[in-house]
Amino acid sequence: MAKLLAAVLAVVLAALAAGTATGMLSAEIDDGMPLIHMLRPLLHSSGHLGRLGGVPCDSWRFAVETDTLRDWETVPARCEKYVGNYMLGGQYRSDSQAVVDEAVAYAEGLKLSGDGKEVWVFDVDETTLSNLPYYAEHGFGSEPYNSTAFGAYTKLANAPALPETQRLYKRLQELGIKPVILTGRREDKRESTAKNLADVGYTGYEKLLLKPQDARVTAVEFKSGERKKLVDAGYVIVGNIGDQWTDLLGEPEGDRTFKLPDPMYYVG
Amino acid sequence: MAKLLAAVLAVVLAALAAGTATGMLSAEIDDGMPLIHMLRPLLHSSGHLGRLGGVPCDSWRFAVETDTLRDWETVPARCEKYVGNYMLGGQYRSDSQAVVDEAVAYAEGLKLSGDGKEVWVFDVDETTLSNLPYYAEHGFGSEPYNSTAFGAYTKLANAPALPETQRLYKRLQELGIKPVILTGRREDKRESTAKNLADVGYTGYEKLLLKPQDARVTAVEFKSGERKKLVDAGYVIVGNIGDQWTDLLGEPEGDRTFKLPDPMYYVG
Repeated sequence: MAKLLAAVLAVVLAALAAGTATGMLSAEIDDGMPLIHMLRPLLHSSGHLGRLGGVPCDSWRFAVETDTLRDWETVPARCEKYVGNYMLGGQYRSDSQAVVDEAVAYAEGLKLSGDGKEVWVFDVDETTLSNLPYYAEHGFGSEPYNSTAFGAYTKLANAPALPETQRLYKRLQELGIKPVILTGRREDKRESTAKNLADVGYTGYEKLLLKPQDARVTAVEFKSGERKKLVDAGYVIVGNIGDQWTDLLGEPEGDRTFKLPDPMYYVG
Repeated sequence: MAKLLAAVLAVVLAALAAGTATGMLSAEIDDGMPLIHMLRPLLHSSGHLGRLGGVPCDSWRFAVETDTLRDWETVPARCEKYVGNYMLGGQYRSDSQAVVDEAVAYAEGLKLSGDGKEVWVFDVDETTLSNLPYYAEHGFGSEPYNSTAFGAYTKLANAPALPETQRLYKRLQELGIKPVILTGRREDKRESTAKNLADVGYTGYEKLLLKPQDARVTAVEFKSGERKKLVDAGYVIVGNIGDQWTDLLGEPEGDRTFKLPDPMYYVG
């Protein structure tokens, strides 16, 4: 009982401390205290905690999602729990929702030619399909990428759809915009990828484009090259959605790009 | 006293509720519950709360910072407090720190020619200088942009430096990389901008490039055009930092780009 009381007291104190901090902040906003003082150098900005070692995980994620951090291999060990909570705790989904809401609004506002040549490019991993069941068992990206294990997982063709992307996909089809699936997965994954997509309801797409088995090109080279071929074939890419910047950069990008969240891995 | 007790009790209950939610989440992560259920459609994803009306403000910010939301005019009214807390509560600064830490690490890893032609492009507003004192008095971007009021503010030449950018600026100079300041501010602001930059310690830059007074070009057109001129003049743009995607997109972008946070306004 004493232990419970002590635990409750600790929670109260923590809550009060948090409340006080928030109260101070509001006062600063409301009372117009000299804001220049808010821009004083941070105590931990001099790097004594080591480069990114001292940066909170939400700031690490900011730098990841805005394409500042590149070629990173794993989620920092200290951020595994943060990323896990992000992915499973609702924020991943609401971030995805914000992106798809905007994509749907944009698509609904387009004046379409109706000639059947308007397409929307979709990436696969962490876009149409979610590999969260895999990554949840592999440290949410904090373990080094294991192509054998991940390859075995994709062969199962068992990945769920990311519901937000699926909502966009179906709405585009209603509007007469044809989905094109463009993935860095290689041709040996065609069958399992097509099966997985069909099983969770992605049907009626115009093309499923995979990377040639032995191609030695970057993601940007491959994907922008495939988009170029689409344009050369007379398609109009009205939109392009993916979780990696390498899905979205490189001409022709598509008339507009939509970046889904993915703090679990980087594809260069 | 009864009022205080009631207030404390409310805090305890809220804290316990929060604690319980976190506990459940951890259990879900640790116990390997079927994760596919975590991907069920969100109750509020059907749009019945209105497009972005139902999206939490941190997800609105995600869509803003990843260039999905474009041409928005003001911060949604419901997000004014959120953005104020973000800007003043430490996260803005630590997000900036994450970006600058990476920029410094990148710059320190460069093999420089030493011929004095290597430059780094800096934007001004919300990059070298911070207009937070202004925006804190104007709803953190939730009020429509007022060019008269903002123009008067910039004439005061009173904006503080963003400390993180200043740290990068000074480190680059130590390394022998010359700063070039490239801003969408127009030529009539040259004097006040130069004074403001000098007063807060930005000295020794190679160029200060402002938009011609009557130019009718987009930010991307103007800025990519100026970067092209730099390259044509023999400069090598090793880095490019700004708070807007329109600072960073459009060839030549620079060898690498760094996106600082800015949830207060959009420059198209």
